[in-house]
Amino acid sequence: MDLFNNFDALQTVQQLEKLAKKPYNLAGPDALSPERIASYRTSVCGFDFLYSTQRVNQEVMQALQQLADEAQLVAQFKAMKSGTVMNKIIGYASEERQVLHTACRDLFTDTPLASKATDEARNQLTRLKKFLAELDNGSICNAKGEPFTTIVQVGIGGSDLGPRALYLALKRYCQKGRKACFIANVDPDDAAAVLSELDLSKTLINVVSKSGTTLETLTNEKLVRSALTAAGLDPARHIVAVTGAGSPMDDPEKYLASFYMYDYIGGRYSATSMVGGVTLAFALGYENFLELLRGANAVDQAGEQEDITKNLPLLMALLGIWNRNFLGYNTVAVLPYSQALLRFPAHLQQCDMESNGKQVTRFGKPVQWKTGPIVWGEPGTNGQHAFYQLLHQGSEIVPAEFIGFRTSQYQQDLAIHGTTSQQKVLANMLAQSLALALGRADENPNASFPGNRPSSLLIADQLTPYSMGGLLALYENKIAFQGFCWNINSFDQEGVQLGKVLANRILSELTEKEEGKSLPSDAPELALLKAAGLEKL
Amino acid sequence: MDLFNNFDALQTVQQLEKLAKKPYNLAGPDALSPERIASYRTSVCGFDFLYSTQRVNQEVMQALQQLADEAQLVAQFKAMKSGTVMNKIIGYASEERQVLHTACRDLFTDTPLASKATDEARNQLTRLKKFLAELDNGSICNAKGEPFTTIVQVGIGGSDLGPRALYLALKRYCQKGRKACFIANVDPDDAAAVLSELDLSKTLINVVSKSGTTLETLTNEKLVRSALTAAGLDPARHIVAVTGAGSPMDDPEKYLASFYMYDYIGGRYSATSMVGGVTLAFALGYENFLELLRGANAVDQAGEQEDITKNLPLLMALLGIWNRNFLGYNTVAVLPYSQALLRFPAHLQQCDMESNGKQVTRFGKPVQWKTGPIVWGEPGTNGQHAFYQLLHQGSEIVPAEFIGFRTSQYQQDLAIHGTTSQQKVLANMLAQSLALALGRADENPNASFPGNRPSSLLIADQLTPYSMGGLLALYENKIAFQGFCWNINSFDQEGVQLGKVLANRILSELTEKEEGKSLPSDAPELALLKAAGLEKL
Repeated sequence: MDLFNNFDALQTVQQLEKLAKKPYNLAGPDALSPERIASYRTSVCGFDFLYSTQRVNQEVMQALQQLADEAQLVAQFKAMKSGTVMNKIIGYASEERQVLHTACRDLFTDTPLASKATDEARNQLTRLKKFLAELDNGSICNAKGEPFTTIVQVGIGGSDLGPRALYLALKRYCQKGRKACFIANVDPDDAAAVLSELDLSKTLINVVSKSGTTLETLTNEKLVRSALTAAGLDPARHIVAVTGAGSPMDDPEKYLASFYMYDYIGGRYSATSMVGGVTLAFALGYENFLELLRGANAVDQAGEQEDITKNLPLLMALLGIWNRNFLGYNTVAVLPYSQALLRFPAHLQQCDMESNGKQVTRFGKPVQWKTGPIVWGEPGTNGQHAFYQLLHQGSEIVPAEFIGFRTSQYQQDLAIHGTTSQQKVLANMLAQSLALALGRADENPNASFPGNRPSSLLIADQLTPYSMGGLLALYENKIAFQGFCWNINSFDQEGVQLGKVLANRILSELTEKEEGKSLPSDAPELALLKAAGLEKL
Repeated sequence: MDLFNNFDALQTVQQLEKLAKKPYNLAGPDALSPERIASYRTSVCGFDFLYSTQRVNQEVMQALQQLADEAQLVAQFKAMKSGTVMNKIIGYASEERQVLHTACRDLFTDTPLASKATDEARNQLTRLKKFLAELDNGSICNAKGEPFTTIVQVGIGGSDLGPRALYLALKRYCQKGRKACFIANVDPDDAAAVLSELDLSKTLINVVSKSGTTLETLTNEKLVRSALTAAGLDPARHIVAVTGAGSPMDDPEKYLASFYMYDYIGGRYSATSMVGGVTLAFALGYENFLELLRGANAVDQAGEQEDITKNLPLLMALLGIWNRNFLGYNTVAVLPYSQALLRFPAHLQQCDMESNGKQVTRFGKPVQWKTGPIVWGEPGTNGQHAFYQLLHQGSEIVPAEFIGFRTSQYQQDLAIHGTTSQQKVLANMLAQSLALALGRADENPNASFPGNRPSSLLIADQLTPYSMGGLLALYENKIAFQGFCWNINSFDQEGVQLGKVLANRILSELTEKEEGKSLPSDAPELALLKAAGLEKL
């Protein structure tokens, strides 16, 4: 178990604490020299990463490399990819699972690191390819013999946010006449609003729940089944399922088709499994989904490099740890200068905060250091007209992660006042990074900018299935590296359990009230129901 | 000027600092008694607000009332509503404007507080009503004589987020055959993706920019004009404008119709002016827009109550200040248990962070206390499957503001396992508030919940135009009250200027590079362009 070490037991942590007493001042004279800007830069898998606007110097960078080495972060990553049981808490009941989302994209070699999991992924892909071909050739169609044009993914959390973010990011690449929609919330208005805009007769429903017991998803499946029946359609002809083998949803007779996901893939890391695969491959085509996997796999391989300048997810993780644990910033803004990435921050918010919003170590002891930050963000340039005021002049410092692409997706652009919209969006992204760092003194204190606010820039040529796969894996692996470094289990989510228990208690009060109360009369649940005017709901 | 007082000069602030040394422990034995839950509750304008799960006791509540009194928060609010110049920094160049968004909904009395502004709002409403009637009766139509079915709002920041959030919230109430879309980002893919899905011949374009100079909006207007022309359509027959009198866009000949907004209404507070009015009234109908104004006006009136239990926006503001300045929490999560409110947190993020992310007082001096928090959030129950792990067990404490409605909008619901989806969504909301507060001890440290994490619950009967107006005004006024208390100017946004300057500098480098460089060769802008691989873009 020598891969697991407490963060505060690492010698390099003490060294970094000393260095953090005088972090690099980005607003100092000549702080951003051309040499610095050119050298705090790395290129990995088609991404250029610029970090001269982080509050680091060469000494800090060396210490971060040393931190990675001392904490054996790459060895932990390789252990994860190879199928070691990384989802566990030593000495306590825990999930005790492998963590193998990387295996479902380790398809492009004859020697995958976790061959059994990769074989399983390959089998599912083969079945998916066949299913899609049958949709294409018309052997699967609706009762009237018409092709399906729309797929509605019914899922929540990991079965929703990742696939939705990726679909929106890549909508440009949709196959002609195909689209996807999503229903997640147990709020009945979510399903009602989505269904009201569809021709159900040409719609596939893709119900996704690993456990096959997710309250929201089962409820929405029933709402959708009822809507299909009401429209005179046979649900078994319209609904496909993605679930774990042996789950209550693992009942191929109820579904037009069924695909498996496996317990070694956590929900929030499942976008490249069948959880994302069925909907994305239906809408974008199978080859585009493979390209996504190819891009993710390339970054997974870069994650095995020991040198942090060649291992971009690790470098991003370490800079995040510098900001979080040594400079004390407790949030991170992810700011894609790409409208297509509008829901990518929401996916990362889930992936990061559910993974690393933890309070105990992998030894089951309370953590004595800060763990995962609050992750939030919206696309630029929109955000510039919204919350950037606080980023520049507020009393909180928010490290920013900018993401941009040299070329637009639609390539429908005009030069106005001598520059295209794409040039404008990129110029704004660079300008914001500089403005946050440099600041500006002004005689009018309200027009002064303190500067010295850190950010980084991640730039690729174009947002394509391949680069989207890479971007996803960069962040998935960044999050895993941070969890390894903090010695927390990034792969469970015990913190969601208590709410479920209390919700069920309240629901049973609502259902059983005629037969006699299930809760003591002074229970806060009852008092809250009453105060909320919901006891007679 | 005795309405303006520094926060740290208020006597009550010292008293609150003492009280904050031992804040109420929500996880203590019997901390949430039925009596407490029943009494920490108020009902205003159709909203029930429950705050027993905030870390306050009666002493703190009395001190917060005293803080409101001492800082003359209600007097400042009335001064604002009456037309006092509240947008200013004393002793320095500043916008020096009135702040009168409340006037555009003060329509339901013969004696509005700011009668000139209300008259101007009424005039615009009358013109809007006439325009809509002409659309309805066919006297305004497309070149083929067909009615317009879609309106695309082209705006950014305040001209986008509020109207978009309100439209999505109230989409259920759309007039038959009417819908709205939005283009904001200067990323050319935003316009391309939106336009690709529309029948332009039946589409109105609503270009919104108060200054008439917003880079993104003017650029997108040109993209849209070019798309209309390419489709063989006459832009002047399709484009309407909302702008300030005298702005470069104030040119009725270029537009099918023009509506005014006024400089006493800030962008982020402009959703109830013509900025929201044209699109919302087109899609939802004029009467529904009036209902929205009516709901907002009711809350504006409640904002004049001195008693904080009757003045809900003030109460929300003070509880926020307690959490921010005295308990030290630097973020707020807004968590609507209503899918229709999916973009309301993004609007509030703008409204709050652009208003109160400030560093100087209204006397032009650096603030010595914390100002506006980072505001973020997503709808529940979705968030429960995403970031709530961190809310319950992370190393940061995030005050949560839950929002829910007793009845769904579509009323398409099913009882499954004895409860409807609406009951499930509400039970989950109450359960989360309780779980955050109570926590739960467990022998397995990973299954333990520390609890003692504050939240509040805001509940109304249904999300309608009226309640949406009220909800909007609750938050707008909450934000203004907090700014008054912190003695900052919540109505300017100087923090967005530096980024604009630097972006223009980079853009002129891109345009002028053939004629000779505009920047010195060691400028960081140049080095960054090069490092980003954008210098030849």
